[in-house]
Amino acid sequence: MPAPDKFLGYVDENADKFIQLLKEAVAIPSISGDPAHREDVFKMATFMEKQLKALGVTTKTVDLGTEELEGHTLKLPPAVLGRIGDDPKKKTILIYGHFDVQPANQSDGWDTDPFTLTIQENGQLVGRGSSDDKGPILGWLNVIEAHKSLGLELPVNLRFCFEGMEESGSVGLDEFISSEAAKSDGWFSGVDAVCISDNYWLNTRTPVVTYGLRGLSYFMITISGPARDLHSGVFGGMVHEPMTDLIAVMSKLVTPDGTILIPGVKDMIAAADEKEVAIYDALDYSIADVEQAVGGQVVISSDKTRALMSRMREPSLSIHGIEGAFYGAGAKTVIPAKVIGKFSIRLVPPQTPQNIDPLVISYVEAEFAKLNSKNKIHVENQHSGKPWLEDIDHWNYAAAIKATEAVYKKQPDLTREGGSIPVTLTFAESLGVNVLLLPMGRGDDGAHSTNEKLDRSNYIEGTKLLGTYLYEVGAIAT
Amino acid sequence: MPAPDKFLGYVDENADKFIQLLKEAVAIPSISGDPAHREDVFKMATFMEKQLKALGVTTKTVDLGTEELEGHTLKLPPAVLGRIGDDPKKKTILIYGHFDVQPANQSDGWDTDPFTLTIQENGQLVGRGSSDDKGPILGWLNVIEAHKSLGLELPVNLRFCFEGMEESGSVGLDEFISSEAAKSDGWFSGVDAVCISDNYWLNTRTPVVTYGLRGLSYFMITISGPARDLHSGVFGGMVHEPMTDLIAVMSKLVTPDGTILIPGVKDMIAAADEKEVAIYDALDYSIADVEQAVGGQVVISSDKTRALMSRMREPSLSIHGIEGAFYGAGAKTVIPAKVIGKFSIRLVPPQTPQNIDPLVISYVEAEFAKLNSKNKIHVENQHSGKPWLEDIDHWNYAAAIKATEAVYKKQPDLTREGGSIPVTLTFAESLGVNVLLLPMGRGDDGAHSTNEKLDRSNYIEGTKLLGTYLYEVGAIAT
Repeated sequence: MPAPDKFLGYVDENADKFIQLLKEAVAIPSISGDPAHREDVFKMATFMEKQLKALGVTTKTVDLGTEELEGHTLKLPPAVLGRIGDDPKKKTILIYGHFDVQPANQSDGWDTDPFTLTIQENGQLVGRGSSDDKGPILGWLNVIEAHKSLGLELPVNLRFCFEGMEESGSVGLDEFISSEAAKSDGWFSGVDAVCISDNYWLNTRTPVVTYGLRGLSYFMITISGPARDLHSGVFGGMVHEPMTDLIAVMSKLVTPDGTILIPGVKDMIAAADEKEVAIYDALDYSIADVEQAVGGQVVISSDKTRALMSRMREPSLSIHGIEGAFYGAGAKTVIPAKVIGKFSIRLVPPQTPQNIDPLVISYVEAEFAKLNSKNKIHVENQHSGKPWLEDIDHWNYAAAIKATEAVYKKQPDLTREGGSIPVTLTFAESLGVNVLLLPMGRGDDGAHSTNEKLDRSNYIEGTKLLGTYLYEVGAIAT
Repeated sequence: MPAPDKFLGYVDENADKFIQLLKEAVAIPSISGDPAHREDVFKMATFMEKQLKALGVTTKTVDLGTEELEGHTLKLPPAVLGRIGDDPKKKTILIYGHFDVQPANQSDGWDTDPFTLTIQENGQLVGRGSSDDKGPILGWLNVIEAHKSLGLELPVNLRFCFEGMEESGSVGLDEFISSEAAKSDGWFSGVDAVCISDNYWLNTRTPVVTYGLRGLSYFMITISGPARDLHSGVFGGMVHEPMTDLIAVMSKLVTPDGTILIPGVKDMIAAADEKEVAIYDALDYSIADVEQAVGGQVVISSDKTRALMSRMREPSLSIHGIEGAFYGAGAKTVIPAKVIGKFSIRLVPPQTPQNIDPLVISYVEAEFAKLNSKNKIHVENQHSGKPWLEDIDHWNYAAAIKATEAVYKKQPDLTREGGSIPVTLTFAESLGVNVLLLPMGRGDDGAHSTNEKLDRSNYIEGTKLLGTYLYEVGAIAT
C-alpha cells in the first residue's frame, strides 16, 4: 500500500518548516562525550520530549543513572520514550534514534559554525548532527506532524526510544532495554519489529537498506611517569618519556595498509567464498565513490569489491588521538607527563568485545613490557558494542525495500555497514524481533567529521520514505 | 668588592614589593607560541619598557617585523632595549632576558590559575613565567630600583636586551643583534661581557654558574590524505589513515631508552675521556635529585654521571605532541584527515641545525616512503638554535663565582645546561665577548611545565646575587 498522495504532498509543501525544526535541534550542542556539554544533552532531551508531546505522543523520560568520566561522576541524559497508537489490528513498530552528537569546534576546520544549521546553495544542510542523527529522528516527527495536520490515521502503532549517549557507548541504555523488554507490560511489549535510521547510503545515488553493522571496542592506553610535564631541555635524555613509549606501543597496533597486528584478531574472520564475494560485486559502488566521499585518493585497495569487504565484513583499527600531549598550533618543547592514546577496533561476527578485549589488552601490555621503560601503563576498554547481522527474508525488510522503490524509483542496495550502533543488537536480542536499518543520509555526509551535512532532498524524501515504510508495514498480510 | 650592606638590606626589606611586581608581570599571559596571545606579548613589552623608564633607564623598542604562522602573518613583539650609565671607567655589561612564556592552561593540571602568581606557605611563588624568565629579568630591575632608592651609584654601565619570542625560536632577534653589533655606534657598542639569567640550578641546594647550552632543532611532520576528518566506522579499513602513518614514522625516531635512531646524529659526539667524566663526577647531584625534580622514578640510567652527561653533553629527542588529532577527554571515533607530529632534538657541539636538519628530514621522508601509503608527507624544521660552549677562564666567570660565594656561602657548580637559549650564541658570535649564564631558579622549578614556581628565597637572594655580581665585575682589575 503506497503512502497517500496527501501525505507526500504535505511533506513537500512543509519542507521549510521541517528544516527550521532541524535548525533548532542542531543549535543545541548536545555532545555526549564532552563533560562540559552534558547539560546540553539534557536540554536536547527536553526539546525532544516537548516536540513529541506537541504531536500527541505519550512520553516518558527514563533516568539512566550516572557514569564516571575522567574522575568525575556525571548524570546520564535520560532516554526519551514515546508511544502513539494502540490498535491491536495494527503492527507496532519501535523507532530508535539518538539526539546526542559528536564533538565539533569551528577551529577543527568547519567552514561555518557547526551548531548553526547553514543552508548551502547546493541544497546541503550543514551542521553537527544534521545527518547523525538529528535529521533522521526529526524525519519521524515530521511524519507524525503531517498525519496530525492532515487528520490522517497512522497505519501502524509507534513506539519511540530516543537516547542521548549513542556517541559515547550508549551508557545505561542496554540495561534499561533489557529490563524493560523482560516486563510483560513494559514499554516495548507488543513491538513487532524495530526500525533505526542512523546510517548512510553507500554513495550519493542509490538508497540502501542495511542488515549488518560492525561492532566496536574503544581502548585507552595511559602511560605515565613524571609527576608533571617537563622541560625537554632540562630532562630530555635523562628520563623515560611517556610519549616515546606510547608512540612505540601504538606503532605495533596496525600497519599503514590496515593490517591489524594484534595476534588472533584478524584470524577470527574466515575468507569470503565466491557466493559472498558476488554480493559485494553487485553493489552500486566504485573506488571513485570512496575517493569523492573522503576527498582524496587514499583508498588502500584499487578493487571495489575488496574495499567494500574491508568496510563491511572485516575488522579495522583506527588511532584517534592522544590526550595529554601538546596539541595546539606552533611549538612547545614539553615532555608530557601523562599521555592517553586512544584507538578502536571495528568488529565483525564472530568477534565480540568479550573475545577481542583480552587479546588487545594483553598484547598492548606485552609490547609495553618489551620497551623496558620505567613508566607505568594502564590499558582499558572505554566502551564497546557487539557486531550485528539480521535476517533480510522478513516482512520488515520487504516493507523497507518496497517503500524505497516507491519514493526513489530504485532498487535499494542491501548493505552491511562499517559503523557501530551497539543498541541495534540489544533490541534484536532483548525483544527477539526483526531489526531494520533504513538510512536517510548519503555516503558523503561527513558524520563525525568537519562540515557534516544532510542534503535537503535526503531530509525531505527521507521523511517520505519513513512514512511510506510505515504504510508498507501496515499493508503486510500477517 | 662585596656589595654594600645597604643594598643587601634594602632587598630584604622590600621583598614584598618585588614579589608584587612579579605578580603584575605573571598576570600578563605573554605566550609567544599562541597567535591568540600575541597581543599579550606586546602588552608585556610595554610593561617592561614602562618599568625601565621609571627607573631612569633610557629605552628603545625595536620593531622586529612579522612572521608567518599557520598561514597567517603575525606582527612580532618588539625587542625592548635599555641603557643606564656611560662611565668610560666602568665596565659595561649587557643583560639579556625574555618576557614571553610557554603556553599554560589550568586544565593542563595546574593547581592554581597559571596567570595569577600564588604565594604558597612553603615560600614558592607559583605562576607561568615566575622562573622562566620573568623572575630573573625583574631581578635586574630590582637591583636598579634599590640603587635608585638608596641613592647608590651602579658599579657598572648596563645595557638591556629583552625579547618576547624566546619560547618560539627568538624569531627576528638574531638579525637585529647581528646588524646592531656591526655598527660602531650601535646599542651594543662598548659592551665588555654579557650576562643571562635564564636557566636553573642542578638541584635545590647548590647555585650554579653555567658555561654551555644544548642547541635545538624543532621539527613538524605533516601527514595528510582525506580532505576532511572521517568516521572510523564508515571508512576504517578502506583508507590510509594519516595517524597510523604518523605513529609509524614517529616510532622510528628514538627508542624508549633515549637512543636517537636517525643515522649520523648520535655518531657526531665523541665519547667522553676520563678527564671529562671527572667534571661530571664532581657535580653536586644524585639520581634522587632528578627523581625529586620530575616526581617519579623514571630516570633512564641509575648512574649519576651517566645521567648528567645525557643532559649536558649528548643530544636527545623528545616527541611533544600531535596537532589535528583528537585530544580531548572521553572518546571520539574519528579518523583525523591531517595530523602534525611535533618533535625536537637537543644539539651539542659539533652538531648544528645545518648539519642535523638534512639528516632528520631525509630520514623521516625515507621512513615514510617505506610505508607505501597514499597519504602525503611534509617535513620541516620549525625553528632551531646552535649549541654553545664558553671559556670559563675569564673575569666574567670569576665575578659570578665570587658573587655566588658571597651571597650563598657556597662554591657554585660549574655546569652545562640541557636547554636551549639560542640567543646566547648569537651574542657570543656577534659581539665577540664573553657570555655568562647566572641562573636564579632551582632545578625543580618546572619551567615549561604545570605549576611552574620560583622560590621566594631564590627571587630575593637571586636579586642580591645579580647585584653582587655587578660589584664583583666593577672590582675586577683589567
